Amino acid sequence: MTRRQWAIGVDFGGTNIKCGLVDRRGRVASSLVLSTAEVSRPAAFVAGIHRAVEQLAASTGLAPTRLAGVGIGVPGLVDAQHGIVHMLVNVPGWREVPLASRLRARLHRPVFIDNDVNLVTLGEWCYGAGRGARILVGLTLGTGVGGGLVLDGSLYRGVSGAAGELGHMVLDPHGPRCACGARGCLEAHVGAAAVVRMARQAHVAHHGRLTPERLAGLARRGDRAARAVWQQVGCLLGRGLAGVINLLNPDRIVVGGGVANAWPLFATTLQRTIHAEAMPVPARAVRVVRAQLGEQAGIIGAAVLVWGQTSGRWKVEGGK
Amino acid sequence: MTRRQWAIGVDFGGTNIKCGLVDRRGRVASSLVLSTAEVSRPAAFVAGIHRAVEQLAASTGLAPTRLAGVGIGVPGLVDAQHGIVHMLVNVPGWREVPLASRLRARLHRPVFIDNDVNLVTLGEWCYGAGRGARILVGLTLGTGVGGGLVLDGSLYRGVSGAAGELGHMVLDPHGPRCACGARGCLEAHVGAAAVVRMARQAHVAHHGRLTPERLAGLARRGDRAARAVWQQVGCLLGRGLAGVINLLNPDRIVVGGGVANAWPLFATTLQRTIHAEAMPVPARAVRVVRAQLGEQAGIIGAAVLVWGQTSGRWKVEGGK
Repeated sequence: MTRRQWAIGVDFGGTNIKCGLVDRRGRVASSLVLSTAEVSRPAAFVAGIHRAVEQLAASTGLAPTRLAGVGIGVPGLVDAQHGIVHMLVNVPGWREVPLASRLRARLHRPVFIDNDVNLVTLGEWCYGAGRGARILVGLTLGTGVGGGLVLDGSLYRGVSGAAGELGHMVLDPHGPRCACGARGCLEAHVGAAAVVRMARQAHVAHHGRLTPERLAGLARRGDRAARAVWQQVGCLLGRGLAGVINLLNPDRIVVGGGVANAWPLFATTLQRTIHAEAMPVPARAVRVVRAQLGEQAGIIGAAVLVWGQTSGRWKVEGGK
Repeated sequence: MTRRQWAIGVDFGGTNIKCGLVDRRGRVASSLVLSTAEVSRPAAFVAGIHRAVEQLAASTGLAPTRLAGVGIGVPGLVDAQHGIVHMLVNVPGWREVPLASRLRARLHRPVFIDNDVNLVTLGEWCYGAGRGARILVGLTLGTGVGGGLVLDGSLYRGVSGAAGELGHMVLDPHGPRCACGARGCLEAHVGAAAVVRMARQAHVAHHGRLTPERLAGLARRGDRAARAVWQQVGCLLGRGLAGVINLLNPDRIVVGGGVANAWPLFATTLQRTIHAEAMPVPARAVRVVRAQLGEQAGIIGAAVLVWGQTSGRWKVEGGK
């Protein structure tokens, strides 16, 4: 094991913060979880990550100086080049926080930050279902619907770090109202709440609180109404992806996130809709596949960010 | 004037083929037009371009050997790297034609080809309304609606050369039927035929055949129904561009093509819709402007393609 073989990846989520020590094969050797509620403010977050880094290094007998660095994916808008968090979605207290420099001063190791979905996409590109793709679109389906783009081996961030906002493409201007205020966004059609709403509208019979997981369980056990809801999800998602395919002509789209656990229930309809609604040439050029890294995608991608910035092995630059 | 200061740009359109001798300041020193009907087949096209190149060089006293090369924009799908036309839209006889090598054998000069809207976008990026943009989206509004992308100084083509197909993004699945067979594409909402259809539906009073030009004339003279149609165009176009802005977070969008001659009649509504429907950060980051190169954009962009490939001055590569 040579120096720089290890990096720590951090995935800042709304409920918890996952931290993992990752090796150059993309394997998580050791991990721990912090409660977001307890360290949600910037100062507490910095202290929490400091402790987590020491703990992870200690658990594997690694001197912190042998870490290539720490990568952090945050749910919001960042200036990746300067390591600044502009704002976080649903987490107060984060406005123009120079997170990378603060953590660097504390850890004495390189620190890099980026948007969480960007890093999930980077992780899948490097070690997951996106391997070998030249133009990769990553899509996460959960409470929110997000996207990331890796073009020719570089994260594409746009001019303000806001690129890849797939969740708020409008599929239907007369469609359901979205949390963002608009009508008919992709998120309002296939996000977790939308899936539950569709199930209610379809009168899916169920006990207890209806969730996408339970709806998937019902569909797997043969409930026809539940199966039809998942086919509707595949159809709506296919329509959204058709536009992305026409615009970017990618060779791979990786679909992840909690709702994507129902993949076998909607994949066929998704693929059929893409072939019906996208232009023939780009539709034939793309493979739409399920994410492989699951819950660990974010921390693995955050580690990839570190290596890309420190070794040049991965070309991970600002704005391309 | 040193060698390689000149290139010939060719813009292969459905009605005519424009050829121009372009200097390194992006000025067209001399130009001529061929009728598409007369040279639409590959062999006739090669012969026609050969004659045009000799004529243009002769008209300015330039030895053909002093040309950097010939760039050609075609209305269809190309393999730019290998100089092959896969197919043309609405021009029969073009299936897998190795156009670049055939012309090269005839002219003894470097020849490069690309999609016509890509080259219009490249021209505007280099010498027109896209100058200085880091991430540029080019949109042409005419009979068809097309798009091109220049990312960090490189044409972005996607994995099969089909990227930038903005015209067939679906704005509204219940919208008007598009020539491509789908419903509610951007082209079916704001292409020339759609604008005329909206004018009819709005009972715009007119003499003779209604065209976008005439509708613009009526609106300029204060016809309220005609003005309302152009505002509707701005609104629909803004909705389509909002999705592109969310996805790519560009700093510039250049709108050209015949229908865009009515720019002052729809620009305000367009900008307002973008601010209402795109996410705030990317909406603030983008400037949406009118194209500057007009009819010459295609031949100028085709010349830029030549310089990018022969001198490395412009990074114009395959598939990025």
